[in-house]
Amino acid sequence: MKIYFAGSIRGGRDDKEIYLAIIKELQSYGQVLTEHIGDASLTSFGEVGTTDQSIFERDMNWVKESDIVVAEVTNPSLGVGYELGQAEAMGKKIICLYRKVEGKRLSAMISGNQYMKVFEYETLEQVKDILTKQVV
Amino acid sequence: MKIYFAGSIRGGRDDKEIYLAIIKELQSYGQVLTEHIGDASLTSFGEVGTTDQSIFERDMNWVKESDIVVAEVTNPSLGVGYELGQAEAMGKKIICLYRKVEGKRLSAMISGNQYMKVFEYETLEQVKDILTKQVV
Repeated sequence: MKIYFAGSIRGGRDDKEIYLAIIKELQSYGQVLTEHIGDASLTSFGEVGTTDQSIFERDMNWVKESDIVVAEVTNPSLGVGYELGQAEAMGKKIICLYRKVEGKRLSAMISGNQYMKVFEYETLEQVKDILTKQVV
Repeated sequence: MKIYFAGSIRGGRDDKEIYLAIIKELQSYGQVLTEHIGDASLTSFGEVGTTDQSIFERDMNWVKESDIVVAEVTNPSLGVGYELGQAEAMGKKIICLYRKVEGKRLSAMISGNQYMKVFEYETLEQVKDILTKQVV
């Protein structure tokens, strides 16, 4: 199974350790195409040594060839939103993982969208349970 | 002309005054379907008295019926990203307006995407010039 994991890069790297933990978990289900999203050395400046156009084309090809898209949507990210909009248009199965944050709310484009499967979590154990049931 | 203006709501309202100024400018070209994005009383909590599903369905219908999508993409927003991904899939003309912010970069899903017309600006005068040339 090919898995496209989506998480914030230029939108902010506050959750990079959580992304890494989710990616490690996802790797027991198949190949995570976007393994670099969990890389602790990747900052909000983004990838270096490549062009934005190359990143865009590579990522969109990965979305196309993926069997499932798993997105961590707690940190607002233009790129993750775009990928979800495109993945939905391609008919991909989409799972969104969200941590409730005091005073913040998930975008209605995700929470009000019946196409997306959105799951709230607090712990990595809960993420594991969600993935066991959903990544099939 | 029907214009879908996209700006951050739940991703953060720091730029709400800029959104309002752009919306006022866009209103000289046609009907701005999403006039509420510039409403100073709209907080990052989002709209009240409606459901996320209603917001989602209304907004997606507006994207569908729009002739052009104009997005202010400086503040990272999951909803704006999703709308851009969907609008592109629908073949809509898309204009993105971006202010360079020290230490931050625009998502490669937007900046590296040849489909989008991305314009950097600093002043409202520059926005007016961009719109004069692009909103036709």
